[in-house]
Amino acid sequence: MSNITTTADGTTTIEADPKVPVIRMTRDFAGTPAQLVRAHTDRDLFVQWVGPNDSDMRVDYWDARTGGSWRYVAVDGSEEYGFHGCFHEVRDDRLVQTFTFEGYPDGVSLETMWFEDLGDGRTRLHATSLVDSFESRDAMLASGMEVGVNDGYAKLDRLLAAGSV
Amino acid sequence: MSNITTTADGTTTIEADPKVPVIRMTRDFAGTPAQLVRAHTDRDLFVQWVGPNDSDMRVDYWDARTGGSWRYVAVDGSEEYGFHGCFHEVRDDRLVQTFTFEGYPDGVSLETMWFEDLGDGRTRLHATSLVDSFESRDAMLASGMEVGVNDGYAKLDRLLAAGSV
Repeated sequence: MSNITTTADGTTTIEADPKVPVIRMTRDFAGTPAQLVRAHTDRDLFVQWVGPNDSDMRVDYWDARTGGSWRYVAVDGSEEYGFHGCFHEVRDDRLVQTFTFEGYPDGVSLETMWFEDLGDGRTRLHATSLVDSFESRDAMLASGMEVGVNDGYAKLDRLLAAGSV
Repeated sequence: MSNITTTADGTTTIEADPKVPVIRMTRDFAGTPAQLVRAHTDRDLFVQWVGPNDSDMRVDYWDARTGGSWRYVAVDGSEEYGFHGCFHEVRDDRLVQTFTFEGYPDGVSLETMWFEDLGDGRTRLHATSLVDSFESRDAMLASGMEVGVNDGYAKLDRLLAAGSV
């Protein structure tokens, strides 16, 4: 087990691909692939964990099926930040969706999540974000995205531990 | 006008970006941006021009709005080839959608079309296809895609000339 990142230390690996404008993330969870898919597709679960601790999330619309679409708003005091996209594919082990932060409305990334069954009720999430330039990719990395990612996954850890997923 | 590709010779420029796994296409049309958007979003128009001359197109589902989705099937004799995706954004000058050829179901590209108004009822289409590896991009280029692209745009030229768009 020494090569498996444990959820105890809650480490998310975030890497910039050297060849293509892609961010790759890997994170282990104490849940099955089916639980992880549910946490990413069930509106009421998703809104409980996604995003940084200092934001409240409000889902505007949510239709997590192949060909569906979604929009949510992060509320941080008097500030609101919108995000939207469509679900290209929703299946048992893989999600593919588009993603736009509405503060940068012409920007769009293609997000792929693959859920690797590690056995013993554990799952490794492999996530990639693909954009059309290295400049956009590096701006995403420089934006502080890891705060929202790490806060969100820690909340998801707690939901899994509480038996809520 | 010497730097403008005319529709008389019907040239589509298809280029591989040297830095990112993107295919860029440029094509001029004797139509307004509004007509070009209509040709790409109206189900009954789209099916009349998309794809190679030796295929009949059948639309399975089609909802060309931000957050909608689509699927069509190319019928070539007894062979059928399915394609599907979702519409990330549909607006007056720009379309962003995902694209999967179902013969390669894990493959997905992010397609962006921008319609540049050249004046005098003419429009330059700028299209990009973004994938997550140079290998996938080069396989797309080697697949003979230019036949379908050129046949399709020539059919669209004829629809525009006939006043059908």
